[in-house]
Amino acid sequence: MFFAVIPAGGSGTRLWPLSRAGHPKFLHPLTGTDASLLQATVERVAPLASADRTMVVTGVAHVTAVARQLAGLPEENILVEPSPRDSCAAIALAAAVIAVREPDAVMGSFAADHLIVDPNRWVETVRQAIVGAEQGLLMTVGITPTRAETGYGYLQCGPLIDGGPLRRVEEFKEKPAADIAEAYVRSGRYLWNASMFVWRVDVFMAELARQQPELHAGVTAIAAAWNTPEREDVLGTVWPTLTKISVDYAVMEGAAEAGRVATVPGDFGWNDIGDFHTLGEVLPADSSGNVVLGGEGTEKPGALLWDTANLVVVPYSNRLVAALGVRDLIVVDTPDALMICPRDRAQDVKKLVDELKSRGEEGYV
Amino acid sequence: MFFAVIPAGGSGTRLWPLSRAGHPKFLHPLTGTDASLLQATVERVAPLASADRTMVVTGVAHVTAVARQLAGLPEENILVEPSPRDSCAAIALAAAVIAVREPDAVMGSFAADHLIVDPNRWVETVRQAIVGAEQGLLMTVGITPTRAETGYGYLQCGPLIDGGPLRRVEEFKEKPAADIAEAYVRSGRYLWNASMFVWRVDVFMAELARQQPELHAGVTAIAAAWNTPEREDVLGTVWPTLTKISVDYAVMEGAAEAGRVATVPGDFGWNDIGDFHTLGEVLPADSSGNVVLGGEGTEKPGALLWDTANLVVVPYSNRLVAALGVRDLIVVDTPDALMICPRDRAQDVKKLVDELKSRGEEGYV
Repeated sequence: MFFAVIPAGGSGTRLWPLSRAGHPKFLHPLTGTDASLLQATVERVAPLASADRTMVVTGVAHVTAVARQLAGLPEENILVEPSPRDSCAAIALAAAVIAVREPDAVMGSFAADHLIVDPNRWVETVRQAIVGAEQGLLMTVGITPTRAETGYGYLQCGPLIDGGPLRRVEEFKEKPAADIAEAYVRSGRYLWNASMFVWRVDVFMAELARQQPELHAGVTAIAAAWNTPEREDVLGTVWPTLTKISVDYAVMEGAAEAGRVATVPGDFGWNDIGDFHTLGEVLPADSSGNVVLGGEGTEKPGALLWDTANLVVVPYSNRLVAALGVRDLIVVDTPDALMICPRDRAQDVKKLVDELKSRGEEGYV
Repeated sequence: MFFAVIPAGGSGTRLWPLSRAGHPKFLHPLTGTDASLLQATVERVAPLASADRTMVVTGVAHVTAVARQLAGLPEENILVEPSPRDSCAAIALAAAVIAVREPDAVMGSFAADHLIVDPNRWVETVRQAIVGAEQGLLMTVGITPTRAETGYGYLQCGPLIDGGPLRRVEEFKEKPAADIAEAYVRSGRYLWNASMFVWRVDVFMAELARQQPELHAGVTAIAAAWNTPEREDVLGTVWPTLTKISVDYAVMEGAAEAGRVATVPGDFGWNDIGDFHTLGEVLPADSSGNVVLGGEGTEKPGALLWDTANLVVVPYSNRLVAALGVRDLIVVDTPDALMICPRDRAQDVKKLVDELKSRGEEGYV
């Protein structure tokens, strides 16, 4: 009765030049293997949901690449958004389409561009969340914080439910200032919000109807037409009118206030691959701390590293990357662009993208 | 009556991956313009020697590229060595061929892979050397030292001849230890030996006959057959027997002992482009000290440098090279290999080449 929904959107400008507007990060093998993040996500949900019950929601710009990367997924399970309307519309569309097919189904929503180090523990955690969802709770998988990160939202947790492992979520907290983040982590009461959600589709649709009645009406109308010849017409008419809002703001915050949200803490090695530095922190390194991306079995010449340390090397151009006597650098080599920066400037890579846009060099963006 | 001879050989492993065994440094535009070092050398000698009197001596491996780069040079002025026999054989071959054509000619020999910042001053200096050569001296152009370099040989100078500007050369000194190099520079009596020679071909051939009779006999036999149908046969038979020795050791050191060598000091900005760091020191930099190689008017996307300093960037792959927040780095981007190292490790680039050879990756060398 479980459906896995994978919203596949977003570009990832801090991963330039690997990630491009036309080829965003979820399409890239940033996993330490040949699998793209999207493919790894589909593999990860396989113990929970068959291909028949695995859905991807993506945009017109990427659907071709998605369809090819996921050759095993039934055609009708790739839902195409005519235009980007943020995560609430994407997830609600999937929920509404599933609800037509199986009104009592439980669904989980998992981003296509996150890296999970221990997929087995992740599956166990999601199974616990499914138990909570079956009881009518809107479940979220919270990540046990490993540092006082200011780049993520947090879940403020309440007491255990019936002795655990589920905990009530009292409030969704926005990205905090540094001192607040430290207090959160010290208290032991906060988890990172990784936007992993598990719920019964009927429960979610009811909460959507309560908080976002227009969005609810819109996706319900689209879902009703989904398996009819009117699908394209209705989608084309209704979709552009849907509110652009994230599901966190639109539904989960209000549901938490109403006491309807719970969480299970996740401790499976989670990374949202925000930039090349953090990517280097989760992937296996050699004895000098160098991380070289690239699947085994490819014919890439790869990297020749001589007296280097703590590099993150992304050799994606079928060229030899030779580095000598450098440390703490990021080197990203793609067929039409090369990028070099120190690991502690990884966040600034988006500035290069902005600069290229301002120069009219859209071809590189 | 002046002939310019340009020996074009040597590979330049410290300029890897730009310089390769199959495409050595003199074929590359390391000049700040579109011209290769070889083309710039031919341009530089033009005020002294017409194309008809400009000769290149090169090997079978590079003659095709040389012929194409120097489309204005008469075919017969490109002398092809069947195999590398070091500089004495190469230069003596040219001298012998010229002597057949014009027995009283003066010739100058200038390496194909050196960079001269001020070509006009260089021409003036060579004209002074020609005056000395016409008087029967074996002339060398010495470089006024700008540092206590241990990587070059030195010329120990004697008194001015007839009040100058020519000075007697007393002795050729090999690459010195650091303390000796400092003493040389302090004394003001030493010049760098840049292996730039100017002499009458008859004087040189006589000195060759005195010191290297077999080499003299060999190149004389080849030159006698040069404009006959026997050229290839004689070249094929005699050339492999010639002693492999540099012209400095073979002729100039002994000639200096015999009091037959003089010099004019040169002060025209000379660089032998031994590595990318020194290349960066002679080419024009932007206000942050970054040197980006690449001719104007090419369609290369070039470099996007953001908050960088003192880089040497060689963008030779038609790709965008983007660097952020790095300094004192060398970045060499070629179609099949990328190399990154700090400027103070520029000498170690040859280690990468050695490592590639030991791995059997000859394709990159």
